[in-house]
Amino acid sequence: MMIVIMKSQAEMREISAVIARIEDAGYKVHLSEGDERTIIGLIGNGRPVDREQIERMAGVERCVPVLKPFKLASRDFKPRDTTFPIGNNLVGGKEIVLMAGPCSVESRSQIIETAHACKEAGAHILRGGAFKPRSSPYSFQGMGEEGLKYMAEAREQTGMPIVTEVMEPALVPLVCEYADILQIGARNMQNYALLHAVGESQHPVLLKRGMSSLMEEWLMSAEYILSHGNTRVMLCERGIRTFEKYTRNTFDINAIAVIKQMSHLPIIADPSHATGKWEYVAAAARAGVAAGADGLIIEVHPRPEEAMSDGGQSLKPKRFARLVTEMKAIAEAVGRNIN
Amino acid sequence: MMIVIMKSQAEMREISAVIARIEDAGYKVHLSEGDERTIIGLIGNGRPVDREQIERMAGVERCVPVLKPFKLASRDFKPRDTTFPIGNNLVGGKEIVLMAGPCSVESRSQIIETAHACKEAGAHILRGGAFKPRSSPYSFQGMGEEGLKYMAEAREQTGMPIVTEVMEPALVPLVCEYADILQIGARNMQNYALLHAVGESQHPVLLKRGMSSLMEEWLMSAEYILSHGNTRVMLCERGIRTFEKYTRNTFDINAIAVIKQMSHLPIIADPSHATGKWEYVAAAARAGVAAGADGLIIEVHPRPEEAMSDGGQSLKPKRFARLVTEMKAIAEAVGRNIN
Amino acid sequence: MMIVIMKSQAEMREISAVIARIEDAGYKVHLSEGDERTIIGLIGNGRPVDREQIERMAGVERCVPVLKPFKLASRDFKPRDTTFPIGNNLVGGKEIVLMAGPCSVESRSQIIETAHACKEAGAHILRGGAFKPRSSPYSFQGMGEEGLKYMAEAREQTGMPIVTEVMEPALVPLVCEYADILQIGARNMQNYALLHAVGESQHPVLLKRGMSSLMEEWLMSAEYILSHGNTRVMLCERGIRTFEKYTRNTFDINAIAVIKQMSHLPIIADPSHATGKWEYVAAAARAGVAAGADGLIIEVHPRPEEAMSDGGQSLKPKRFARLVTEMKAIAEAVGRNIN
Amino acid sequence: MMIVIMKSQAEMREISAVIARIEDAGYKVHLSEGDERTIIGLIGNGRPVDREQIERMAGVERCVPVLKPFKLASRDFKPRDTTFPIGNNLVGGKEIVLMAGPCSVESRSQIIETAHACKEAGAHILRGGAFKPRSSPYSFQGMGEEGLKYMAEAREQTGMPIVTEVMEPALVPLVCEYADILQIGARNMQNYALLHAVGESQHPVLLKRGMSSLMEEWLMSAEYILSHGNTRVMLCERGIRTFEKYTRNTFDINAIAVIKQMSHLPIIADPSHATGKWEYVAAAARAGVAAGADGLIIEVHPRPEEAMSDGGQSLKPKRFARLVTEMKAIAEAVGRNIN
Repeated sequence: MMIVIMKSQAEMREISAVIARIEDAGYKVHLSEGDERTIIGLIGNGRPVDREQIERMAGVERCVPVLKPFKLASRDFKPRDTTFPIGNNLVGGKEIVLMAGPCSVESRSQIIETAHACKEAGAHILRGGAFKPRSSPYSFQGMGEEGLKYMAEAREQTGMPIVTEVMEPALVPLVCEYADILQIGARNMQNYALLHAVGESQHPVLLKRGMSSLMEEWLMSAEYILSHGNTRVMLCERGIRTFEKYTRNTFDINAIAVIKQMSHLPIIADPSHATGKWEYVAAAARAGVAAGADGLIIEVHPRPEEAMSDGGQSLKPKRFARLVTEMKAIAEAVGRNIN
Repeated sequence: MMIVIMKSQAEMREISAVIARIEDAGYKVHLSEGDERTIIGLIGNGRPVDREQIERMAGVERCVPVLKPFKLASRDFKPRDTTFPIGNNLVGGKEIVLMAGPCSVESRSQIIETAHACKEAGAHILRGGAFKPRSSPYSFQGMGEEGLKYMAEAREQTGMPIVTEVMEPALVPLVCEYADILQIGARNMQNYALLHAVGESQHPVLLKRGMSSLMEEWLMSAEYILSHGNTRVMLCERGIRTFEKYTRNTFDINAIAVIKQMSHLPIIADPSHATGKWEYVAAAARAGVAAGADGLIIEVHPRPEEAMSDGGQSLKPKRFARLVTEMKAIAEAVGRNIN
Repeated sequence: MMIVIMKSQAEMREISAVIARIEDAGYKVHLSEGDERTIIGLIGNGRPVDREQIERMAGVERCVPVLKPFKLASRDFKPRDTTFPIGNNLVGGKEIVLMAGPCSVESRSQIIETAHACKEAGAHILRGGAFKPRSSPYSFQGMGEEGLKYMAEAREQTGMPIVTEVMEPALVPLVCEYADILQIGARNMQNYALLHAVGESQHPVLLKRGMSSLMEEWLMSAEYILSHGNTRVMLCERGIRTFEKYTRNTFDINAIAVIKQMSHLPIIADPSHATGKWEYVAAAARAGVAAGADGLIIEVHPRPEEAMSDGGQSLKPKRFARLVTEMKAIAEAVGRNIN
Repeated sequence: MMIVIMKSQAEMREISAVIARIEDAGYKVHLSEGDERTIIGLIGNGRPVDREQIERMAGVERCVPVLKPFKLASRDFKPRDTTFPIGNNLVGGKEIVLMAGPCSVESRSQIIETAHACKEAGAHILRGGAFKPRSSPYSFQGMGEEGLKYMAEAREQTGMPIVTEVMEPALVPLVCEYADILQIGARNMQNYALLHAVGESQHPVLLKRGMSSLMEEWLMSAEYILSHGNTRVMLCERGIRTFEKYTRNTFDINAIAVIKQMSHLPIIADPSHATGKWEYVAAAARAGVAAGADGLIIEVHPRPEEAMSDGGQSLKPKRFARLVTEMKAIAEAVGRNIN
């Protein structure tokens, strides 16, 4: 369903050509002839029509799509919230789920120490990066499978499920062996081969929003995963790139309410990346809970000044524990809870 | 205080010229000669040196300012929070102040009806536009002084102080006659003649952030007002312009914590403009409280579908009343309160 | 003329209410009932209908305006290019006009020296700021009327008309006494009181695009001036604010072709502000000519390392002279010329 | 080499801790004690120090890196322009290379017809997509290997080398069998596994800038490829995402001059994606040549209104031929040429 707006000077034969094209595709045409413009509506269920093709026809000013380009991800398609269990939590339900841990797994002792500290502070799920996307080829690229093994050991000791990033299709089977949730990083939100692979895997997915992705594009990327029959998808707002320089990213807090309205999928907030500085993480985390997030993912490191990545935005376990208390109070104030 | 980074190929005479210029301005020079670069530091209290002048000198790669460009607005200058009374509220204190009302004053009955409804719902200050900045010369431009008179009448009836926008220096005296707080709109954040005039007025000011202003520029604009001895300045985050299209603006929730850290001035959140759609206003308002805002300004209209401006983002009084209840619960959760 | 897209679940009575509202405003209604949505078109010439009002009605998803919101500025309204003489040049015609000079007038000798140098290099119009908008209240704010007098003297000596910024309505008469063209700076593009005043003045205007203004908003601001009967308006693309940090602004070179298509007004490029670094000015200036600009405004200073503002982006007269030669060659290549 | 700026209230023991950390890493320390701040410089060649680690230390306000984070891609490392032959052209030399062809290969006849038309019009290299990154899983995803075969046939007939996108590491060997140049699309600019694979392949690479990537990040991605010993890398500016809506992207014309200054790698302009509308492609292409691009890549389709992707931004062969003539004239005007 689409509307075609013709140019004011469009000629009769141009209008006829557009109509013929639309009817060819199996649609009924609905014509509105104003004094200044003619508007052509497509009605019914024809074959998909490419918007750009129509826009290239003579006399056409522009096309306005009436329907959203995503379907399985939309609330129109599935009005009720999607929920699914991860460990002892029901993601997308009344309880807010807390994911916490270091940016990178740096050593066996580091991840195990952090896991225990996060668990004690109230976290439900352990985060940690084994394969790290780094802007520079000279930066620490992660411990790889060794890191995954240490995370699995931390899970054994604490009972916390683990979420970790997978960066390429070929590694999806390996990461699935260890991880409870596959994270797609912001840089890979439109890495379609990877979306295909995690879709096929049937593993729960945490899909981060691209640094400058429209919410519509984000939901389209979710659609890629959903279209493989993998329905356990969480969306993660982690800040977008803007002109502002005092923070690493701009936390698009609006996205939480918008996504809840447009989609049935759970929405997770990442205040660590959304601010990029530990001093602002607590305020952003509280805001995320107040705005209606279904979960949070927060970077915690026992000694941030020694972290091999993202030390600047990591909380110490003590500060994280205090933040959990703050978030619990807000969760209650908005009719949710954190256990 | 500034650091000058020389180019890797900078010649001795170029370095000497920079040193001479800095010493001329009354600074001591501190030289660091690395293998790859020479770095020149300015120390002491010389005459102001223009960064761009130095950057234009031969052999200079760039200058790094060490100090922030604003002073009176900074927390370094005044570590304790600025507070001042408006009506029965102490802005900047423990209590969160609520400003509410229509985008535009449209008629006597409209503003009086709305004022009573807002008051009952829990608002402290009445907002309303008499002079309206509109993108189109063909749109309703506000009722002017007549609108101010109706607002004054609404204040009489409800006891609520009033905040309204002033758009040009020549009108500052007139608006001061009626208003308790002068609002500088986003489009005028860098209208220096206007900042000068409201600075001189000694009236309390609500300074909205420009649509695409850096926080640093926003604080510089506050500095313009403060430098006239007018210390009653509130900053108002109202969303910034980004690439995202589902919302009118992107609410920069990070700004609340950043401004609280960098400045002593009260910070107010405007969830109506920051989202641009009434459906998202409540979530944004709750987030603002959770993040630490000292106040909120929210558009309320008894019949938004008839509003002459911003109907799309206005709450009905009933929804606003429910939101006040929600905000009260969150305020308590973060150790603040709304009376 | 507008299209209203109803929600998929819109009820019959909601659709009827929208229709009633539209008919009330004097429009004919055109109804398209698809399987998934109902779409309502407004046809004919009714009273202006506020888009946001309709969008707030129950059951409405969104409204799509069919016509552009500006009229006098549009090519639909006036298909042929606007041209008008300034000095010996016909702005908007086949010849490309060159404006050059310092950012600020700093002294009598500086502006006169620069004027002669620019004239010799091939400039047609002298630029120079007497009233300067500066982010910091502590920066040099310009020489004021004294600066205007020196510019007038420079005009006398060189025969070049002068363009200079006016920042507040109250100063329009004063600046009109001296200047041949009134410049509206980027920060004031939506300063409506100022647009009104320069519209009334009937003086030629150079309207800079706001730092983050949509082209549509820019043309709406031109509309403010045009609606006062002042038709001598030039638009000036001076770069927009983006996330990129290596340059001060991002030169929106696309805007030149888009504006030429949408509007009949002359379009001027400002490569100095659009890049912010003198090293990149020549490339941007050449690009501006190649893209179809009707003129360029370029900052030139005899000793940029002593400039009181914008030294970093100013060309020395010699480099400017070489650039003029480069631009002449490109002008010819695109069928224009620079005399 | 880095500069550490301490907070104004930094204590002696905090300063000492930072110094100790820096000396530990093998650097000499250079201390500047101002009245307001202490500044610590790192000199010499120590082990890499993580900026964020230092910024997390007590008393530190921020760190300023002195050197650029990329090396092999920088002009400091390799002052002379990189050039290499592709077919009969020397990319990066005095001649400007023209790549043209359809967005997608749609059929054998379509690509062969287009190839001949492009060749006749003056193109040197044939572009065409066989594997297509599409926002929607429901859109045409390209013909895959079949498309590559048709491209190879078109090369046979016309003698033009071919450039085509590769989207996942596993397909690099296959695409290398057919393509002369591997294109990395904007969405994959930070797909590090893919950068690694094309680096290893030793095939020439066309690296598109990410939709919202800083130039610095773009050069870091080039560094990933260069660090595998693959030096035949071309950078491609294809527009960035901004707030502006009239064009699909904003062509960052400044990037051409900035990249030429910072890097020795050839820079290619893509006016088709940078504008998104065929009406603006010619102006953008001319601007690209005038600004100093080493090549252009332009979408051409014999019947854009039937194109399966990007029809809206494709030129018809006739218009492309005219554009080649226009570009030749500008190339000459800037001392380059197009053969």
